[in-house]
Order: sequence, then structure tokens, then C-alpha cells
Amino acid sequence: MTHQHTMVHARQQAGEHSHNRARMLISCPDRAGIVATVSRFLYEHGANIVQSDQYTMDPEGGMFFMRIEFDMEQLEERMTLLESDFQAIAEDFNMQWRISRVSQKQRLAIFVSKEDHCLVELLWQWQAGDLDADIAMVVSNHPDMKDYVESFGIPYVHIPVNPDNKPEAERLQLEAVEGKADVIILARYMQIISPKFIERYPNRIINIHHSFLPAFVGGKPYQQAFKRGVKLIGATAHYVTEELDGGPIIEQDVERVTHRADVNDLKRIGRTIERVVLARAVHWHTEDRILVYQNKTVVFN
Amino acid sequence: MTHQHTMVHARQQAGEHSHNRARMLISCPDRAGIVATVSRFLYEHGANIVQSDQYTMDPEGGMFFMRIEFDMEQLEERMTLLESDFQAIAEDFNMQWRISRVSQKQRLAIFVSKEDHCLVELLWQWQAGDLDADIAMVVSNHPDMKDYVESFGIPYVHIPVNPDNKPEAERLQLEAVEGKADVIILARYMQIISPKFIERYPNRIINIHHSFLPAFVGGKPYQQAFKRGVKLIGATAHYVTEELDGGPIIEQDVERVTHRADVNDLKRIGRTIERVVLARAVHWHTEDRILVYQNKTVVFN
Amino acid sequence: MTHQHTMVHARQQAGEHSHNRARMLISCPDRAGIVATVSRFLYEHGANIVQSDQYTMDPEGGMFFMRIEFDMEQLEERMTLLESDFQAIAEDFNMQWRISRVSQKQRLAIFVSKEDHCLVELLWQWQAGDLDADIAMVVSNHPDMKDYVESFGIPYVHIPVNPDNKPEAERLQLEAVEGKADVIILARYMQIISPKFIERYPNRIINIHHSFLPAFVGGKPYQQAFKRGVKLIGATAHYVTEELDGGPIIEQDVERVTHRADVNDLKRIGRTIERVVLARAVHWHTEDRILVYQNKTVVFN
Amino acid sequence: MTHQHTMVHARQQAGEHSHNRARMLISCPDRAGIVATVSRFLYEHGANIVQSDQYTMDPEGGMFFMRIEFDMEQLEERMTLLESDFQAIAEDFNMQWRISRVSQKQRLAIFVSKEDHCLVELLWQWQAGDLDADIAMVVSNHPDMKDYVESFGIPYVHIPVNPDNKPEAERLQLEAVEGKADVIILARYMQIISPKFIERYPNRIINIHHSFLPAFVGGKPYQQAFKRGVKLIGATAHYVTEELDGGPIIEQDVERVTHRADVNDLKRIGRTIERVVLARAVHWHTEDRILVYQNKTVVFN
Repeated sequence: MTHQHTMVHARQQAGEHSHNRARMLISCPDRAGIVATVSRFLYEHGANIVQSDQYTMDPEGGMFFMRIEFDMEQLEERMTLLESDFQAIAEDFNMQWRISRVSQKQRLAIFVSKEDHCLVELLWQWQAGDLDADIAMVVSNHPDMKDYVESFGIPYVHIPVNPDNKPEAERLQLEAVEGKADVIILARYMQIISPKFIERYPNRIINIHHSFLPAFVGGKPYQQAFKRGVKLIGATAHYVTEELDGGPIIEQDVERVTHRADVNDLKRIGRTIERVVLARAVHWHTEDRILVYQNKTVVFN
Repeated sequence: MTHQHTMVHARQQAGEHSHNRARMLISCPDRAGIVATVSRFLYEHGANIVQSDQYTMDPEGGMFFMRIEFDMEQLEERMTLLESDFQAIAEDFNMQWRISRVSQKQRLAIFVSKEDHCLVELLWQWQAGDLDADIAMVVSNHPDMKDYVESFGIPYVHIPVNPDNKPEAERLQLEAVEGKADVIILARYMQIISPKFIERYPNRIINIHHSFLPAFVGGKPYQQAFKRGVKLIGATAHYVTEELDGGPIIEQDVERVTHRADVNDLKRIGRTIERVVLARAVHWHTEDRILVYQNKTVVFN
Repeated sequence: MTHQHTMVHARQQAGEHSHNRARMLISCPDRAGIVATVSRFLYEHGANIVQSDQYTMDPEGGMFFMRIEFDMEQLEERMTLLESDFQAIAEDFNMQWRISRVSQKQRLAIFVSKEDHCLVELLWQWQAGDLDADIAMVVSNHPDMKDYVESFGIPYVHIPVNPDNKPEAERLQLEAVEGKADVIILARYMQIISPKFIERYPNRIINIHHSFLPAFVGGKPYQQAFKRGVKLIGATAHYVTEELDGGPIIEQDVERVTHRADVNDLKRIGRTIERVVLARAVHWHTEDRILVYQNKTVVFN
Repeated sequence: MTHQHTMVHARQQAGEHSHNRARMLISCPDRAGIVATVSRFLYEHGANIVQSDQYTMDPEGGMFFMRIEFDMEQLEERMTLLESDFQAIAEDFNMQWRISRVSQKQRLAIFVSKEDHCLVELLWQWQAGDLDADIAMVVSNHPDMKDYVESFGIPYVHIPVNPDNKPEAERLQLEAVEGKADVIILARYMQIISPKFIERYPNRIINIHHSFLPAFVGGKPYQQAFKRGVKLIGATAHYVTEELDGGPIIEQDVERVTHRADVNDLKRIGRTIERVVLARAVHWHTEDRILVYQNKTVVFN
């Protein structure tokens, strides 16, 4: 498919610059000297800090969060040493941390049902080189988008789901994604994910809910919004937890509506909000910009 | 107070143009011929339609809503005749309707507790000539803003409210407002209004709730918003009904916040949203732009 | 292509409801009695007004604009009579007017160069049934998107443009579109259209300019925006006139940016604004919601 | 005036927490080791970093900007030493830098002409404890707001300006502000400031321009916006430079308008945008959140 190929160049280019770039994410109890210690560590290892963000929940006794983007010569070869050297600091400060190389793109599995707008958006952004990730596969309980997805050279895994085969369907889904996907995107996937599944991907399943949470939790949020007569409708991207629509919110946005809008208009207007909000959340996740703490997100964007 | 006087001119000017202008509001079951009949009626009475808005909920069997702004020579003298002439049409179409002269400004009673930002905003917009209404009085359960309000030449009615005197306090409030105010603005008034009071001002009590309803109903919405980790905070202006924070929504707006914002930041950012949203709602109400039907509003703005 | 077919149903459904629906657009000097006369005319011809919007520039001596959406039994058969009957009224009030049947969809010719995001958006909205128009063809000065466009069953007209063949290229373009397209969408088409071409499609060529006009007229608006250090970037959809980026503005929107955004970030963020703004403008144009007067638009949306 | 006093408590409280807090602003050519060196310096001086933001224009050869907020015991007593100790580092890295104590509030001189909305907003935010600054005086070329401003206990300096006395008027203005104000806010002050005056307050004069710059530079921007038929109007806060409306942009915002809005409506809607945008800019300036480089701002907010 010609269209696909015209965009490959854009994606490759974006990748080249990031060859020696890494991102470090840290969460730990706040105390004096963290920034000094970490920045000294990086400096002594020859890293040049390109961007650094930090946030302290409460200067007295709160948590400290940090994201550092840095360049380092021969990064790939030196990663193992870098990580083992950092171990002592991490223990000293009681840190949760990880370093990831930018060139090692996260692999997405996109779950989708019948509504295709969020999938189409992600595929378009990926093609345009705007989404710095690999799309490992699309998983669906319907066969409808098989040809479309495969025309991008992306595997399409069709696993039907019905009230009787749910555990078996989830087993097949896990089999499909494990080892192949780092993060799961529920791009208007209309089935409930079981706690067992969620446990395997903690803070690594992103859902788009078609309302401004916590308003209109659950089913048919546009109908609920119509009934309540709200003047703005919204969408919310969040990590999936056991509580329905209750996980840490990554991003939200809204659009103005009037009394003239019926439920179909809300859905139409909402589709664009959903697309934009989900794409932003995926973008930030794949760039390691999100830290989760106590059911809330710190987003360094 | 000099400040007050510099603005009087602006307010008078706005009034002058509206001498012969009226607004007509109609709700009725939809059927063919309404617009033709009403516009012919106005034409035959020498009115010139300046603006007209209409909305049909559902072309088949729904409700029809209309707002017409028109100019008519010698309006004041001819109002009574105009209204009695329209009676037959109104009955024929089973209309709820009213005509109001623009020059006969609505009288506001502003209820306020300790937070003053919404009051200050309304007073400033009124002074600037942007709020086409009379402020009949400010009613408060605290004495704090007495001097400030009186410096505008506006009566300040201080009625203390405590758990023991609530019915008596409401009796005094009603006594203060009845016959003197057409609409009551709860400008961050932190007391619950009883159903009995609400009944006396159906769809004529406007409250500003400091959240994006229906999210965060009830007390301490900014704390609730902080706890949930939302990425946008909002405010909602609505008519007060018996259901707490459940009345018809007039206007809503939101502002983006990040993880850096603590509860105090949310309150500070929220204050500006509250001010703007309440002022818009009051603006539209006083210009007869709002129709209520089945707990929702039609806003012709 | 499966993807395409799954959406056909949605588009057909939207069409069905509109079988007997028409839209009437009127511009004329304001004077008393217009609404009464037009609404009576429609009523007497058995039409039921579904929506009506009007706007008077200045109640004294200004222009009057009106859009009426109505249902009429056997519309197709009665259109000719309806139009000829209205002729007398139109002359009396010196109206510019037209009536169009909703079921007779406007035909778009989408012009595109190498950037594909606006085209992809319009195709997606069209597939989703959200764009109530026919896409007659895509015209491009590059061959790149041929396969992609044709996979939707839409003809792709490749007409190379270079400094030497401009008049000939335009001649071929006109030959391709005339009689086949009612409106031309410049979806990031990077060639100047000649006055001669514009004359043939007055107020029927919609361009998307990638800035918040009138800021950053001309080439490389994102570079200009970056250099000026603006805190919001935008896009503008407008009708094309002889003056570069100077035609009547249909729609604009903006997105917040920070000092961190380089030119590539601005382009990436801007692409989504461009898509949304152009799609809205096309949507409104195809629903006959736009009237042009003195280089400005009246948009009844 | 009672109103004023009710708010004093809020302002004092905000101050108390900041007793030992300081902010450090740094600009220098980027090179490895800056963050490590600065954070180590602060750590060794017993400072605890509360917030830190940095930005590198271009990792290779660009400028580096940093803002650090930190707490230090006995800050006031140790400031001189801290600053002299830092001198060596600053020279080594070729830094432009300053440290300011949060408790030493910036002093504002607000310049105003006849439009009072921006002044009223700043006074209200100051009263509410939301503006962490001292208002040293209000300077005006008109006497109108004298009583109002003085009722807050703020000196009002009335210096008439006319075509003949401009140099003399500016001399009096400078005499009034020098040594008493750190930053000058042009809160809809309608006189041109001379280059000589600007030189004395480089990047310390903030103007609010009532358009979305660079659109509608110069006089009567709302009339210009009306004439061009834009669909969003805006306001821009910027530092004043010799080029009219050409200085570094601090903040901008917009609001949607329709064809129905006449110039007066634009002005009314615009007043709220102006107020909000100016207040944000002043807020950020007084919290040392803005760095200027090459006619652009880095805003760490």
C-alpha cells in the first residue's frame, strides 16, 4: 500500500536522533540531596541532561518524582553498567526507578471492538511518525477491521468474546500479547477486562472512557450526558484498575455542546475528543512521561 | 465613591437603546405554522424582529421553543394590548409564553457567605454596564461585606443563619426579597435553601457550584477533584431545585490543571472559572435567553 | 477493502431521514415582515420548519440573513413549483436566496499535496457517516496517495504542477472538477490558485491555513509562530479569494503551546488543529450553514 | 474599608510559609554538568530543592535555562554568603543568574488610564491573597479612580499626560516609581512609553494588548478583529520593548465569538480575557517564573 510507505521515512528519521538518548524515571520519599546525587551520578558517567522534570508532593515528608532525559555516548553498550552502578544510590534513597533507551520503542497492543475512530487515529499518528512506538498487533472481538489493519502490515488477532467464553478469550488474549506488547491500549474496546488480566499489566493498560470522569461512569455515557443536559462533553484516558472507570487519570479534555445536540451529535463530537485524548495519553506513556502514585498520575509533559 | 459614578454613564447608555425593545419567550408542543403565526402577529402589530431563535426537540411530536427580540414603537403604551391580543394564539397552540420589555430590568438579590469573588465579579460587571439588571440587594449570613456593598449604594441585608434559626432566617430572607427581587443569585452562598423557599422562585434561583457537575456533587468539590486527580476542574451554574446540585444546568466551563496543583491552587484557579460561569448565567437569565424543560435548559445565546 | 464497507451502512442511514428535508438560505436588506412572509409561504406550502436561524447586522438599515431547515412531503416532486412560487417574494424583498434538498449531497473535490492529515481526516469522517457529502475526487500534484485514495473507491486525479505548466495544470484541474464538484477543498494543497480559477468557484473553495489568521499570513506559518514566541498556535479555514489568506474566515481554533515546543512540535500539534478546523468548515458548508457578506461569514451552526 | 481588612489574613498566611524559601534563576550556554554542579552547591549549603525546572533550547550548542525553588534555614541571614559563594560557579559556566527570597515581595506600580477592569482584577486578586506582591502605587493620567484606589490604602499618583507635556510627564512618572517599584504593569494604560523609560525597566514592564498578537498590532484591535471577521478574539501580555506590541510574549488566551458579536460585544468579552491574561502574567513575573531570551519567554509555570 503506497500510503504506508510514504510515511516510513518520517518514522525512521525520528528514530535516528534518539540513538544515544535515555530516560530515567524515579519515585522516592523526598529528602535533601536527591537531585544533587542523581545529577552528579549522570555527570560522572558522561551523560548530558537534555530535559529534567521533578515534582515534590509536599516538601515535608512527601513523595518525590523525577524524569530525566539524557544523552550518553555508546549508550547501548553501557546501559548494563549504568544500571548496576545506580543500584547503590537507588537503595540509599529507597527509589523506585527505571532507565529506558529511547530507541527501544514500546510495543503496543491495541484492543478494539466495532468503533474504529480511536484505532484509525493511532494508526494515522503512527504512520505520520508522531507516535514513537511500535504497534505489535491489533486485537479485536470482531473480524471487521482485519483487512484494514493488515494493510498497514500489522497483525490482526481476532478473538471472539461472548458471555460463555470469557475466561478462555482472555487466556487467548494474554497468550497473544505476553512477550510481544509492553502496553495495552483499549481503543474503545467494549469488554470488561478481568482483575487477573489487569494484574499482569499494572499501569500498563490505557483505556479511553467517553465521558469527563468521574461524571458518567459506566455504560452509555453520552446518553447520560444528554439526559443531564451538560454544556460540555468530555473524554478521559486512564490506566485500568479493578475499579470500573476508577483508575488513575492520564488526560481529559472537553468540547462545548448546546441544547441542539442530540445523542448522535454528542457521539460525533465526542469521537474527536476521544481520539485526541487517547492519542495524547499513549504519546506520553510511550515517552515515559507518566508516573503513578496513589491512584493519581504525575505527567511530565 | 468616585469609582461608582464613573460607570453610571455606561449603564445609562446601554439602557437608552432598549426603550422600545421587547423579548418574547414561547414553549409549546411543536406543530406546523407556529413561526408563521407568531411572526405574522408581530408584523401586523408593527413590530420589527431584531433577533429570533428557535429550537425543536424532535420534529415529530417534540417541544418547540422560541425567543424573539423585537422593536415596537410606543412599546410601553401598547404592551397590555399586545399581550391580550396574543392570548388567542397562545391558547390555540397551547403555549407557555411571556413578553418582557428590555427597559424593565430584572432585579437581582445576590446571596453571599464569606467568599466574595463571585459577588465582586457581578458588582464589577454591573458597574461596567455589562450586566443589564438592577441589583436590589445583597443578602448575607455574615456582616463582613456590608461596607463594601453599601459603598455601591446597594442595600446589604445581614441575616445570621445557624442550625437553630434556619426556618426563621429563611422567613426573614423571603420577607426581604419578595416583591423586590425577580431572581436570586447564590454567589457562593453556603447554606442549603429549603424546598419551601425554592418553590417561591421556580427556575429563578441561580447557584454556582464549584465543580463540573455531575462530578463532585455536594461539599468540598475541590478536595474531591484533588483526590480523584482530574486534569480539568470546572464550575457549573444551574437553577436550584430540590435535588442538591441536580437542577437544570445553565452553563459550565473548565480550566486545565496539572499534578502540581494542590487544593489551594485548585481553589484559586477555580475562583476565576466560578466568576466567569456565574456571570454568563446571570447575563443570559437577565436577557431572557433561557428556557427550562424537563430539568434541562435551552439557552439562546 | 473491508474497512470501507463496514461504514457504508452508517452513511446510508444518515441519508434516509433527510429524504423530504430542504434548506433555504436568504440574504436581503432588512425590513419588517420578512420572517412573517417567508414562514407564511412555507406554511401554506405544507412545510414544517425544523430549524430556523436569522441574523440582522444592524436593525436599522442592515442586512438580514436567514437559514430555514424544513420538511415537506414529496419534496422532490414539488421543488420546482416551490422555487417558482417563491420568486415573487424574493423579488419583493430583493433577496439572494436558494433552496437545496438535503438528500442531494454536495460533491467535494479535495485538493492535496504531500501532507496527508487533512485528507485522511475528511476521508475518515466521510466513512464514519459524519460528513454528509459525496467525495467526487481527490486532485493532487503528486502521485503519492493514489493507491490509498482509490482503495476508498474515489477517483484520484494526478496533475503535476511546476513553474512552467501552471496555466495548463489549472486548465486540466478545471476540466476535472467542472460539472463534477460543487465545492473544492484545499486540504493542505500547497499551490496558489489563480484568480481565474477562483472566479469559477466564488465562495466555494475552502482552504485551511496553518495559522491563526490574520497572524502569520503566507508561507511557513509555524516557523513564523516559533520565531514570534506565541503561546497558542492555531489554524483557520476560509474561503479563497484573490487576496492571499485574506478571504472570509469560516472557522478557527487554537491549542496551547509552551517554550518547549520546537517547530516540529508546533507542526505536530498544529496538524490536529488543522484537521479539526477544516472538517468543521467543510461540515458547515455542506450543510448550507454559511452565508458570506462583505468578506465575513455568518455561520448558523 | 471593611472589605479590605477581611482579606488581610489570607495574604499574611500565604507569606508565612515562604519565610525560608528562595528562587534561583539561571541562563547560560548549555554544557554538561550544570545541574550536577548547581544542585550539589545547594545541597552542600543545606538547601532543600522544592521545585526545579529546566529547559535546553537545543542540546547541542543551545542555551540552558533553570529555575530552582528551595528552602534554607535562616535564609535571610545567609543570603549574602550564598550569593558570594555561588559567584565562582556562575563565572565558570558564564551564567546570568539571580537569587530572590520569596518573602521579599516584588513591588508593582500599576499604570492605568480610563478602562478599569484590569486594575480592578489585580486589586481583587491582591486582596484575595492570590497575588504574591506589594502594590506600591497606581499611576494614572486621569483622576477618576483616585478614591477607589486610595480606599485600598494604595497611593494614587495622578500625572496628566497631553501632547505637549509628554517628556515632563514621563519624568514625573519615573520619579514616582524609581526606588519604589520593581515592575510596572500597564493595565490598559493608553499612552506610548518612550524608549528612555523602557530602558530603565528592561523586561520589567508588562503590557496587556487587547488582541491575539501578532494579529492586530496597534490601535483599536477589537475594531480590526470585527472587520476581519475572526472567530476567536484574544489578549496578549508581553514585556514592553521599543517595538510597538513587539516585545516578548508572556501569555495569551482567546475566547470564541460569532458573527452576532458587534464591536461592543467583542470589547465586553475581551475585557474578561484581558483581565485573566494580565493577571496570569503578573502572577508568573512576581513568582520569578519568566526568563527572557531573544525576544521570547521561557515560562516555568
